[in-house]
Formats: sequence, structure tokens, C-alpha cells
Amino acid sequence: MRQSTHVLSIRTSGRGLLEITREIRSWVADQRLTTGLLTVFCKHTSASLLIQENAAREVRSDLEAFFEQIAPEDPARYAHDDEGPDDMPAHLRTALTQVQLSIPVIEGEPALGTWQGIYLFEHRRRPHERQVVLHLLGE
Amino acid sequence: MRQSTHVLSIRTSGRGLLEITREIRSWVADQRLTTGLLTVFCKHTSASLLIQENAAREVRSDLEAFFEQIAPEDPARYAHDDEGPDDMPAHLRTALTQVQLSIPVIEGEPALGTWQGIYLFEHRRRPHERQVVLHLLGE
Amino acid sequence: MRQSTHVLSIRTSGRGLLEITREIRSWVADQRLTTGLLTVFCKHTSASLLIQENAAREVRSDLEAFFEQIAPEDPARYAHDDEGPDDMPAHLRTALTQVQLSIPVIEGEPALGTWQGIYLFEHRRRPHERQVVLHLLGE
Repeated sequence: MRQSTHVLSIRTSGRGLLEITREIRSWVADQRLTTGLLTVFCKHTSASLLIQENAAREVRSDLEAFFEQIAPEDPARYAHDDEGPDDMPAHLRTALTQVQLSIPVIEGEPALGTWQGIYLFEHRRRPHERQVVLHLLGE
Repeated sequence: MRQSTHVLSIRTSGRGLLEITREIRSWVADQRLTTGLLTVFCKHTSASLLIQENAAREVRSDLEAFFEQIAPEDPARYAHDDEGPDDMPAHLRTALTQVQLSIPVIEGEPALGTWQGIYLFEHRRRPHERQVVLHLLGE
Repeated sequence: MRQSTHVLSIRTSGRGLLEITREIRSWVADQRLTTGLLTVFCKHTSASLLIQENAAREVRSDLEAFFEQIAPEDPARYAHDDEGPDDMPAHLRTALTQVQLSIPVIEGEPALGTWQGIYLFEHRRRPHERQVVLHLLGE
């Protein structure tokens, strides 16, 4: 049994879902394990992770619109606005999704379903440099 | 230290919470580990996992009603409707819950609280065949 | 490769976010592992876990207010009220957040971002005794 870790640095282009499945699969393949557990961890409180459909583009735009509506940018609602009006909704959208995902690795690959992609969900308006930690344990 | 993996195939009967605690506990018991980490992973984007109260039936119906209200079936709201009006709300409800749970195993059993049950949350109207991957690591 | 487990008993003071980062970091440090995977698991259905900003106090009060608004205490909405009007909203707020977090351990410490703190989110009005299971695996 052995472990590997890696930090992916990802430049987002502002609010929205950015697929990172390929970068993650590629790193896992390089570790040459057959069976194990992959953990993906986002080191931020205004960006998060989501496994979602990787086919129809409309699923992503509907998801983005849903989170904008459920946790709106509306300064009147929030006491916290030190970093601008998009900061507190970013924390709420992070709370409603995930900062961590663990995925079994079987036959050398993350056991994702056919339609599942891993997305980094940027919640701030502007582009940010984000760090996603990968941890793999197995044999 | 050793690992086991297994895929549970579960036939849902349409929208709602389906308890799968017994199937999971039974597979864990068969692996005969004392201490470890169990990961449960749902390979779908329109069904998810939830740990919830396993006592009062009303908790489940209230949960189901809540998610139907917060992410409603309303074609006017969504661009994505290739697979019917219940598909996009299914993706949203999946995003708001989990596709993965990891539970420590202590003294041979998942360390669930007394009132915690593991549920597969089917978000589509019709019955579906769902695959839930189990991964156990420990000794 | 080795494992450790521990149960943190935490007395909450009623509804709200309680930071438990220090207790978790301290236990991890005592295990003297360099690289590994830490899992934090909350054994309850009316309290949950959240990684959130550990700087501005207003982020926490805005988060608390958001969850009170999105899953309100309103007996007319819920069939389940055996344990009082704050019980069903507690289950909903638990479903929308997490009962489990796994965090890679790198260079002996949980790989949290600078602004990330781990919080126990008490959803009941009254103080409760809560159990949070820690599991650490690594070397």
C-alpha cells in the first residue's frame, strides 16, 4: 500500500463550472495503482467541487443560474461585504456544494459513471488561481 | 492493511429515499476488518446519497417535499430538457446533496450514529437501475 | 501504513457554527504521521460539518441566517414535529451541508487553505452533546 499527493493549480476565468476530470485522470494514471481511494480537496471558501453531467452544456448553465438564484448577490441580505458583493454568495454556494470528493479507484481508474465529470466551481466574479489537492492511496 | 471493492446494483422505484444501510453493513461485515475507512460512491448525476434519520417516516417525506420545492420541476426555468422535465431538477438535487460518503469503521462496523441511515436518493420520476460503488480499506 | 481513530465529544451551545479546527489539528499532530488522509464524521442527523472562512465573524452569522431562511422553522410546512419545531429544519440543514469531510494530510498537517476552518454546525436550538469521529490513515 502506498500514497501520493499532488497540488493542481488551476486558473479560473471567473464564475462558473470548469471541468478538471482530464487533469485528475491523468495524474491518477501516472501513479500506476490498480485499486485505491482518490481524494480531491479544494483549499478555498469561495470555490468548490461538484460532480455533474459532462454531456449537455445546458446542464452547466442551468446549474450556474440555479446557484445564482438560490444564494443571490444582494448586498442588502448580508453583513459581510469586505471583499465585494460577490464574496458572501460565494461562501454560501460553497457551503451548499462540496470542498472534498473521494472516489474509489478500480482497475487503475477513478470509478466515475459514464456521465460524471469533476468540476471546479468558481463562485467569484473575477478569475482566481485555485489550488486543488489530490491524495491517492492504494496498491 | 488491505482493500476490498464491490458494486451494489440497486433498483429504485422512482423518486424518493431508499434505505441501503443493511446492504452496506452486510458487505462490510463480510470483509472482516476491525478498523478502516468505508467509502460509498454513487455513479450517477440524477441520484445521490444522504445520511438521514432512520426512525420517523415523516422525516423522509418532508425531505422529499423540501427538495421538490427548492429545486422544482418547472420547464420554464431550465434550458436543459432533453431527457424530460424531471431531469434538470434531478441534477440540482444531486448537486445539493452528496454523491460520496466516507465513514470510519470501528470495531468492525461503520461508525454511524444511532439514528443515522444511509439512503440512495432517486431524483428521477421513473424507476432506475443505480450503481453504488463500495470501497473499504483497513485491517 | 497505520491508522488511528478518536471520538471528539463536543458540547454545543445551541444553534450556530462552532469552530473545531484546533481540536482536530491537535489530535492529528499527536499521531505523528507525515502523509495521510484524515476523515471527520459527525454521528448526528441534526448537526453537520462545514469548512468555512475562519476570519470575518460576519461570514458565520450570514451563513446561519441563510440556512434559517432557506430551511425555515415553520411547523405548517412539515409533517414531522415529534421533537419540536426546530427538528425538521435541522434535518434539512444537515442534508444541505455535510456529515463527513476527508482532508489530505501533508507534512504532518491537514492541508487546509489559509482561510479554511472546520466547523460543527449545530442546528437544534438547545445545547447538545455531539460526537465527531476522527479517522487517520497514513505513514
